[in-house]
Amino acid sequence: MPTRRHKSIFTRIEMDIQTTKTLMQVAAGAEPADKVITHATLVNVFTGELLENWSVGIKGKRIAYTGADGTHMIGPNTHVIDAAGKPLIPGLIDGHTHILWMTTPEEFLKNALSGGTTTIVTEIFEPYPVAGIDGVNDLLNALADQPIKILATAPAMVSISRRSRGIKKADLDSLLSRTEILGLGESYWQGILQSPDAYLPAFNLTRKHRKTLEGHSAGASQNKLNAYAAAGISSCHEPIQPAEVIDRLRLGFYVMVREGSVRRDLEAISEIRTSGVDFRRLVLVSDGLSPAELSANGYMEHIVQKAIDCGFAPVDAIRMATLNVAEHFGIDDRVGAIAPGRYADMAILPDMTNIAPELVLSNGEIIAQNGISLARAKSHAFSSKSRETVRLPGRLEAKDFEIAAVRRENTHTVRVIELITDLVTRERRMDLLAENGRLQINPENDLLKIAAIDRAYTPGDMFVGLLKGLGLRSGAFATSATWDSADLIVAGADEADMALAVNRIQELNGGVVVCSQGNILAEMPLPIFGVISDQPSKVVEQQAAAIDEALAGLGVSLRDPALTLATLTTAAIPFFRICEEGYVNLKDGKTLGLFV
Amino acid sequence: MPTRRHKSIFTRIEMDIQTTKTLMQVAAGAEPADKVITHATLVNVFTGELLENWSVGIKGKRIAYTGADGTHMIGPNTHVIDAAGKPLIPGLIDGHTHILWMTTPEEFLKNALSGGTTTIVTEIFEPYPVAGIDGVNDLLNALADQPIKILATAPAMVSISRRSRGIKKADLDSLLSRTEILGLGESYWQGILQSPDAYLPAFNLTRKHRKTLEGHSAGASQNKLNAYAAAGISSCHEPIQPAEVIDRLRLGFYVMVREGSVRRDLEAISEIRTSGVDFRRLVLVSDGLSPAELSANGYMEHIVQKAIDCGFAPVDAIRMATLNVAEHFGIDDRVGAIAPGRYADMAILPDMTNIAPELVLSNGEIIAQNGISLARAKSHAFSSKSRETVRLPGRLEAKDFEIAAVRRENTHTVRVIELITDLVTRERRMDLLAENGRLQINPENDLLKIAAIDRAYTPGDMFVGLLKGLGLRSGAFATSATWDSADLIVAGADEADMALAVNRIQELNGGVVVCSQGNILAEMPLPIFGVISDQPSKVVEQQAAAIDEALAGLGVSLRDPALTLATLTTAAIPFFRICEEGYVNLKDGKTLGLFV
Repeated sequence: MPTRRHKSIFTRIEMDIQTTKTLMQVAAGAEPADKVITHATLVNVFTGELLENWSVGIKGKRIAYTGADGTHMIGPNTHVIDAAGKPLIPGLIDGHTHILWMTTPEEFLKNALSGGTTTIVTEIFEPYPVAGIDGVNDLLNALADQPIKILATAPAMVSISRRSRGIKKADLDSLLSRTEILGLGESYWQGILQSPDAYLPAFNLTRKHRKTLEGHSAGASQNKLNAYAAAGISSCHEPIQPAEVIDRLRLGFYVMVREGSVRRDLEAISEIRTSGVDFRRLVLVSDGLSPAELSANGYMEHIVQKAIDCGFAPVDAIRMATLNVAEHFGIDDRVGAIAPGRYADMAILPDMTNIAPELVLSNGEIIAQNGISLARAKSHAFSSKSRETVRLPGRLEAKDFEIAAVRRENTHTVRVIELITDLVTRERRMDLLAENGRLQINPENDLLKIAAIDRAYTPGDMFVGLLKGLGLRSGAFATSATWDSADLIVAGADEADMALAVNRIQELNGGVVVCSQGNILAEMPLPIFGVISDQPSKVVEQQAAAIDEALAGLGVSLRDPALTLATLTTAAIPFFRICEEGYVNLKDGKTLGLFV
Repeated sequence: MPTRRHKSIFTRIEMDIQTTKTLMQVAAGAEPADKVITHATLVNVFTGELLENWSVGIKGKRIAYTGADGTHMIGPNTHVIDAAGKPLIPGLIDGHTHILWMTTPEEFLKNALSGGTTTIVTEIFEPYPVAGIDGVNDLLNALADQPIKILATAPAMVSISRRSRGIKKADLDSLLSRTEILGLGESYWQGILQSPDAYLPAFNLTRKHRKTLEGHSAGASQNKLNAYAAAGISSCHEPIQPAEVIDRLRLGFYVMVREGSVRRDLEAISEIRTSGVDFRRLVLVSDGLSPAELSANGYMEHIVQKAIDCGFAPVDAIRMATLNVAEHFGIDDRVGAIAPGRYADMAILPDMTNIAPELVLSNGEIIAQNGISLARAKSHAFSSKSRETVRLPGRLEAKDFEIAAVRRENTHTVRVIELITDLVTRERRMDLLAENGRLQINPENDLLKIAAIDRAYTPGDMFVGLLKGLGLRSGAFATSATWDSADLIVAGADEADMALAVNRIQELNGGVVVCSQGNILAEMPLPIFGVISDQPSKVVEQQAAAIDEALAGLGVSLRDPALTLATLTTAAIPFFRICEEGYVNLKDGKTLGLFV
């Protein structure tokens, strides 16, 4: 299928001279505004002032004027909105997220439009390993022309698998040429330090486009953090303690404080509010929200509210989700402030300590009122290429998961992935017995088999290893929604169930499956890129709950078992990971086999 | 002559992956640094902290590491510089200047390298009207590979003359593709509001390159200032009062406080230090320094010192000449801070209130110590095209400056440029008598003839008008160094002297000339673009003093008469100007003839 040329709102406006001329006319009083907001207390993120009795003139999608008197822009057809003295803030920005969190962008937006978020910057690496640049473009088309702006960073593909590693230069160049691509996505620090030759050419190309290099420096400090900064990285959303924030601010990073479904770091970090350091490079982000958490808590309004509740001054908290992040991405000429030429993205609050917008405007249109969304997210039909990404050569069988003994002795010393927390792992060594030439595992002792199966590059290539700490006592648990990878991952106590789970995912064209004793206990089809559902959020939430329940019945008590499984392939979280080539020790980037 | 491809330091480094890898190695301790500064009190412009006992590692031209312990980078050949606890600040940046102020860049730099300035952003419009893109490229070659970075903005050419108006799209595109071109130069607000169609295409092209639009909004307020901001302009160096600064900050402008030879606005503006507004978009600039003022006072160190003396906190003042301006231009990944990956541009101060650097590093090299420059500015041989820009068809005669009566009546009502201050003008109407069919002027009453003569587009085309307020009682005063124009300007009490002055400029291939009664009293040859001298600063200073003295002898008592004459062609300063087409009223942009 030919790639449709994407046209986002962002792209079109920027090139439109007539729009600029019209804005100038409106500001000058030669043409009426479409909307004028009067009697606002404008939160000026540039100066930090609250400007009382301020007016804002809007023409089309953009702001023409802000000042003490907007009467010159009011014509017979101008919609006058009296803010009655309430605070008017810029639309909120999520500067780092993963919008493909189980649901389509459309479904995500259904719960994201009412709270004042008007710009999202998302990672979009998921399609790249399994559907290439066509998949990325298909996703970008889904993100375009929505009621709010969804911008993105190009896939950096810092992957533990050599097959998935990096983005092709031509692909990156074409993405960076698009206005809505703001930079290169998060490039996990260890991969960059270990394989600079693999990634620095992409960094240079990105800088040539005058776009940003997004970072991820979890656990890096001192010399290594400096080396990472020297590579040109300018953001990090991984600090979990105030000292880590300050270390990064001092090196010039924009530090994105994460408050979302991966982790909630804001409360611990909020101690820096009394440290005396400047907050101009401090940013609030979600780093991804599950459908359940989004619908329960809301979006950026919830995060800004929490920052205020944690003691940040309201103006500072608002800047962390507006001007600061817009400056980081070099888009403060278009978003992040209420000023002439910017998109008319803004929200009226009940008061400065209450981030519960009574009115939300995006691109000059009212998209929400009193917490009720008035805008409709655009739906998108993903291409067949995007929906057929589980390309295994055939059905798997139990024997595909057997591990042959390699020596005459009965005892084999093997490497095992051990979960230290629900996400952090380490290498453990164990002695296993062989029986009939096959290594034996003991699920009773919480030792499982785990397999990584390539579904895109050389479909069917696989590595079988061992996993400790999941808690699964029987059956199998598999997912295609793995991070930074084209691999399916399946963990199991039983080889036949492992084959069943993978075969079911193949039938579904992607998904999460729990099975036991030959029966599917729960499943969530994820047919788009093998990563997201095409079902409504509510359905997905129910499926997720059913999966958690089924897994609990099999002994798994982790916070979010699907996330645990999905992250076993990523270079983002320490220390010991798996891909179709084997284990990978993130400390040195080396690939390792099962046997010591 | 073919255009030599320019290669600046700035360009080369950015593309060099090996350099980045080496920096990473040094930071990580795998390779020694070239220089390590120890025991510094690092002024961290990101956080606002003063970090005691800090170390900085330098490799080649750039910074590899900053932190509490730099010992891991010290090898046998590493040059260790003990800062002994003194403040270490980023190299200072002049964010808006006109480097072609009478002398060559080389001469300018001779007095500019010792005080801690390491980056200059200059306007470069002077060559464009008289030598085209080849002239601009010739100038850029003169600016390249100097001991400090000289970056530039492309000529916007907001000119009152239709011939000089605007820059060709291909020329702008080629300039914006260069790393050292940071944006489009100052675009005077009235021209933009009056002729958006003439300039907005250049604005859009600049934004497409993700570069800045430099502004100039002297006297604009309210609706017009909003219209100007809506056009995409993001800086202004024209405010002279605190309220004007705050008005512009609120609209998202970076406000550049000017302290140089055109005006000195810092003291008046410094009142805003207690206003409570955020200073993150406040910047200090020179807007041009004469050779005499540069050698007498120094450069950015003098301006930052004055900001501190005016009561700004030292860290704030330093940020105004470092991080803030680097962020404006989107070059904070390379300059404006002491952090990994940035150029090793920095200075050690005796203390935080004393901006008199004891040591200055630029691109990793020590370029000055205790106020003594150790670096040598590169000389440049300007091309013959750049040196032959006064292309009049022949010698002028007294009769060329006669004004023929247009009616039978003896009295003619005419328009006159009246100087209200040394730079600001207005239209005045006067009745003049004709004699022998020629209008008569009365120098005793301070009324002079003034002519604008095209020297580039249709050489010799001229307009003769009238000027009041210069004070010249006899002779003539002419210059080719006019602003935003390809015109020579000559003012005179006597037509023969006017012809003599212009003819002398033609012989000199450009210059400033004072003559009286058939004698040249003083002159300053300006053979390069007709705008700058090829002589040492001291010679130019003496010539300038001689010109002022000669003019004083003829009755002129203005602060800087050559500047007054040079600015009569600009759209930058209100209100009534002159070009080869006639007078121009800046309030409406209309061209007007002599007779009412």
